[in-house]
Amino acid sequence: MLDSLFNPQSVAIIGASRTEGKLGYAILANMIESQFSGPIYPINPAPPPPGETNEILGRPVYAALADVPGPIGLAVIVIPASQVMGALEECAAKKVGAVIVISAGFRETGREGLKLERRMAELAEKHHMPIVGPNCLGVIDTVVPYNASFAIGMPRPGHIAFMSQSGALCTGILDVALAQNIGFSRFVSLGNKAHLNELHFLESWADDPHTKVMMAYLEGIVDGERFIREARRITKHKPIIAIKSGTTSGGSRAVSSHTGTLAGSERAYEAAFKQAGLLRAGSISDLFDLAIAFARQPLPPGNRVAIITNAGGPGIMATDALEKAGLSLATLNPATQETLRQVLPAAASVLNPIDVLGDARSDRYKAAFLAALADDNVDALVVILTPQFMTEIEETAHALADAAETQPGPVLKPVMACFIGEAHMKESQRIFSERSIPSYPTPERAAAAMRAMVTQAAWAAEPLPKFERFEVDCETVARIFAEVRADGRIKIGDTESRDILTAYGIRVPQSKLCASAEEAVAFADEIGYPVVMKIASPDILHKTDVGGVRVGIQSPSEARDAFDLMLYRAQKFQPNAQIWGCLVQEQVRGGKEIITGMNRDPQFGPLVMFGLGGIYVEVLKDVSFRIAPFDRKEAMAMIQEIRSFGLLRGVRGEPPADLDAVAETLLRLSQLVTDFPEIVEMDINPLMVFEKGRGAMGVDMRLVLKS
Amino acid sequence: MLDSLFNPQSVAIIGASRTEGKLGYAILANMIESQFSGPIYPINPAPPPPGETNEILGRPVYAALADVPGPIGLAVIVIPASQVMGALEECAAKKVGAVIVISAGFRETGREGLKLERRMAELAEKHHMPIVGPNCLGVIDTVVPYNASFAIGMPRPGHIAFMSQSGALCTGILDVALAQNIGFSRFVSLGNKAHLNELHFLESWADDPHTKVMMAYLEGIVDGERFIREARRITKHKPIIAIKSGTTSGGSRAVSSHTGTLAGSERAYEAAFKQAGLLRAGSISDLFDLAIAFARQPLPPGNRVAIITNAGGPGIMATDALEKAGLSLATLNPATQETLRQVLPAAASVLNPIDVLGDARSDRYKAAFLAALADDNVDALVVILTPQFMTEIEETAHALADAAETQPGPVLKPVMACFIGEAHMKESQRIFSERSIPSYPTPERAAAAMRAMVTQAAWAAEPLPKFERFEVDCETVARIFAEVRADGRIKIGDTESRDILTAYGIRVPQSKLCASAEEAVAFADEIGYPVVMKIASPDILHKTDVGGVRVGIQSPSEARDAFDLMLYRAQKFQPNAQIWGCLVQEQVRGGKEIITGMNRDPQFGPLVMFGLGGIYVEVLKDVSFRIAPFDRKEAMAMIQEIRSFGLLRGVRGEPPADLDAVAETLLRLSQLVTDFPEIVEMDINPLMVFEKGRGAMGVDMRLVLKS
Repeated sequence: MLDSLFNPQSVAIIGASRTEGKLGYAILANMIESQFSGPIYPINPAPPPPGETNEILGRPVYAALADVPGPIGLAVIVIPASQVMGALEECAAKKVGAVIVISAGFRETGREGLKLERRMAELAEKHHMPIVGPNCLGVIDTVVPYNASFAIGMPRPGHIAFMSQSGALCTGILDVALAQNIGFSRFVSLGNKAHLNELHFLESWADDPHTKVMMAYLEGIVDGERFIREARRITKHKPIIAIKSGTTSGGSRAVSSHTGTLAGSERAYEAAFKQAGLLRAGSISDLFDLAIAFARQPLPPGNRVAIITNAGGPGIMATDALEKAGLSLATLNPATQETLRQVLPAAASVLNPIDVLGDARSDRYKAAFLAALADDNVDALVVILTPQFMTEIEETAHALADAAETQPGPVLKPVMACFIGEAHMKESQRIFSERSIPSYPTPERAAAAMRAMVTQAAWAAEPLPKFERFEVDCETVARIFAEVRADGRIKIGDTESRDILTAYGIRVPQSKLCASAEEAVAFADEIGYPVVMKIASPDILHKTDVGGVRVGIQSPSEARDAFDLMLYRAQKFQPNAQIWGCLVQEQVRGGKEIITGMNRDPQFGPLVMFGLGGIYVEVLKDVSFRIAPFDRKEAMAMIQEIRSFGLLRGVRGEPPADLDAVAETLLRLSQLVTDFPEIVEMDINPLMVFEKGRGAMGVDMRLVLKS
Repeated sequence: MLDSLFNPQSVAIIGASRTEGKLGYAILANMIESQFSGPIYPINPAPPPPGETNEILGRPVYAALADVPGPIGLAVIVIPASQVMGALEECAAKKVGAVIVISAGFRETGREGLKLERRMAELAEKHHMPIVGPNCLGVIDTVVPYNASFAIGMPRPGHIAFMSQSGALCTGILDVALAQNIGFSRFVSLGNKAHLNELHFLESWADDPHTKVMMAYLEGIVDGERFIREARRITKHKPIIAIKSGTTSGGSRAVSSHTGTLAGSERAYEAAFKQAGLLRAGSISDLFDLAIAFARQPLPPGNRVAIITNAGGPGIMATDALEKAGLSLATLNPATQETLRQVLPAAASVLNPIDVLGDARSDRYKAAFLAALADDNVDALVVILTPQFMTEIEETAHALADAAETQPGPVLKPVMACFIGEAHMKESQRIFSERSIPSYPTPERAAAAMRAMVTQAAWAAEPLPKFERFEVDCETVARIFAEVRADGRIKIGDTESRDILTAYGIRVPQSKLCASAEEAVAFADEIGYPVVMKIASPDILHKTDVGGVRVGIQSPSEARDAFDLMLYRAQKFQPNAQIWGCLVQEQVRGGKEIITGMNRDPQFGPLVMFGLGGIYVEVLKDVSFRIAPFDRKEAMAMIQEIRSFGLLRGVRGEPPADLDAVAETLLRLSQLVTDFPEIVEMDINPLMVFEKGRGAMGVDMRLVLKS
């Protein structure tokens, strides 16, 4: 779909200007400077000033697109918003391959602008003419190459593809990249995403041989559910690093469930990015730090890192940083230690961190590089250097690149540099960027990048999730929902919720509505004592207030007494209430209280929550989230992610809880909320989980339908 | 004490070398280049090569220190380790003011080296001749100025004083500072700290008018208790920013208490730095980020920050970052909004973040600066700029500095720049460093620096802690410890621990050792039922095994039965046991379980822990720490710091717990462990806390004495 955008044969600039300092001039100038090899057509209906030829920057100007003799691969539109639709129609008539709309003045100005964007998208679809923007900086492509933007400067070619929902940020990112010699394959300012959005580009770059890693600045996602599905597939073979900014709540609907209170846009993004395998960057420097690692080095085969340093202090800092990042310090083979002992001075450390000492020249570093990379206990290498009196900065940089390039194999290991300093590091930085070694100013940033590489390697090695579907009884649920709606309600609790859980294979306490004391006793005898009894009446909302709840009923006589007393009191306190009898229920014994539920996120859909019940949710807010659907493995990860997981695994000699049953409940819940998009929130609270092998049971549930 | 170090009249270099590439040459060359105004004396006993004059770099060489005609303010020693003590003695004889020992080969090489260092320290003290090092890079002073180091380059003058326990890190830090135009007042490589340590320098710089902020890289602290006491006083008027690296456990003593298990060197440092008011940096860039903020700008009067930006996306990122850092986004006065409305285009945002739009030139930025700084709802200003098509980068930088310098007052507000980019930002960075505006590459780093400034301002405004001393009965505790030791024991529990807690005014359950059933009944009658009864015997360790513990005894007859039965069983199961009778104890009802305790940290002394008992400590490790002594305010902060604090404040309609009683218990515990340094660890577990006004009670306690 994006072929004509990333491989245009010719480019027209609609709104090319004769005046320096205008965007329409800057874009044309950038396009010419970019060494685009095809024809470039400036379009401008205004005649040239008297006495001048109708040319801009030496290119003949056309009054209209239709006048251009040949076909047009890509059109860039930089004219007032009111004229853009007309220009797009001309583009369609001319069968232009793709369009970039630079012009602003659309949805950011209000409802009318949004309408224009919708028409733009329709036209794009109808004519198979993809549109970037509007309200963007443009697109730069170093592969073709071309520069259809008004950015100041063009990045060097590289393996990073970048997209940004903020055009202004593009200018900042580009300026950093220019200074640090960081290259890009494609560089896209998304603008308002009227037609092309983040997913189109991710899909296009997934198969782009020039792109090894993608980075994105996003403020929102157009189609969250599809995004997760597709991005998950892409990230398995190419990393995506993203900044998501704006972490305020997405929806304004009042929420009434626990899950709803704890959910929110930020939680949803966190879950979605995790499930889609995106690596989340916390800042612009993070974005670059991770991207250059992936662009320049192979993925590590494991998480065991060796450190080589000429400075003790920074060596300790690197150790701290790697451990904090959850990586492990490689234990060097005895043979490696022996080799190091032979090539390093006696005072050097041959354990990890390998300290080559402050007076190390490049040869000593080099010997250490070779020894560490040859060690099969080492998966990756971080090299620390401080500019000391004898230090050979550039030679050491070259030695590191040489060692990285000539690894004996079979598995290549990633290498990172952390040369601490700046005034004397300009040349070594140039060497690193030329020779594809990621380089970081501090050990902490190197460690964060290495962590991301290890995470990506593990993610890539893991198969795509396998979603289960259980045999369930959708019809019953659909019927209950219909009845509830017919009743003018949208909230569901109590008896109805029991039937819903049962229909989806989630166990609930045995219970029965009994119309007489005899029936109550008979049922209690059948399920065994103790039992719980509750008055059953559609009119009595606060059962406890009328003495309408009794727990711990131990015998037939207690059951009989309870029945009679409840009916007597209910009639006395609410004489007009319709009374069906008593609900007799199995009393749940033992087990741990869990809460699980769902809140529908406006961007990503069903956001499922898991946590331990009571104070763990209310006070500690110790919960985890996933977007449904998810698979059994993810359900288990979700359970293990909470801080209080130890309580389920079993502490103080208690038996472990039935985690498989909890995971299955999460999966069944996930299926329920996926099958019925009209469920906007629900809680199962408590879900009692019993010891391993004894299952789980949904004791209480509330659910809200879409109004 | 450090006058002669930071104000020498003359400098001798013992070990000055004629050979370029030697340290003794480099130091002399640095000293000469540094424009030190006093005489510089190279000392070298070797005669010059035949035919050459006895000069190095144009300075006449002396064979021995004694030969130097005038007095010597500062001597720099750069000769083999074996000759250093001799040279130091010559320095003492010559009444040298201060010495820097560059030479390595001391404690880092083993026990002999450590001994030499001890002799060095003795000599320094005896002759009032402070010694820096050994094993260091040297000292640079831009105030004097002088450069007595072998660093490559000399920093520009500035208001930051720096010390580092890693000489290699000094070279990296210096190189960064050189590139970023960051100035220093004093720059010290601490080396092995044989004599002068971190605290000497902090104390010296506290009163140094050239130093506004201190930064330190530390691997350890020489005298932890004194460090906290002194640093706390210093940080109230001058910020200290520190990196502490090496977060592995300090001691190897096996620990047996909960507190001991959860404590450890990292927790101790965290508590110590907090109590001393140090700002902890996570990396070298953090160190600089915070230091330039303090060096260049006034402390903010509050935490309400205004953002001005020419880019929506980065404005959102700044908002996210400030909120994550716990700062608040200023709500602009209506008058300010009105002013902004008049000076900015219609599409601009006059709410915070103030968006001056992508086409803003410097005049528009300037108008926004003035409006924001004049608003008394604004305490600080962060300015974001991305290099867009119309952006006037340098003019905007100047406009910001102008606005910061010409604030109407009365309170000056700090201003920070975040100009996103690098290739086109070199000149603006120069302007910022010239004109004292802290500048950051990302909004996240600006936010972190602003957070540190707000923290420092709050700390400076708060008085020093006021330590309480309670009336306690030390004699009883001393007597118990003596008896226990006489007994060959070091562990204390049960009855003895009751007496210790009581002696320190910590309530324990009422209890009495009763020799007869009559006595037991009488005491139970007196304290009220229910009671707990336990067999009392020094020989029965596992009371439960012989049925020697009964809880919930409700009446005189139950008490009598329990007494007789316990005695019968005890005699039956352990016929040879000495049996004293039964312990009758008040049964604690209600309340919440707390655990508190102490573990003695090798660096900082008594590290006191607080947490909720049971799973909160065991599974969630939800605990807080302080070093004793601390005051009531800190005790309360310690209580409020745990994640599960909500449970003490009262949830689900429960009454709040008696936090004052808990705080007081922490203070009494703190006094106990301070009074008795021989206590190496202890737990009060559980400490029951009752509802507000009803106090707390130490139910069980164990304590370990130093062996």
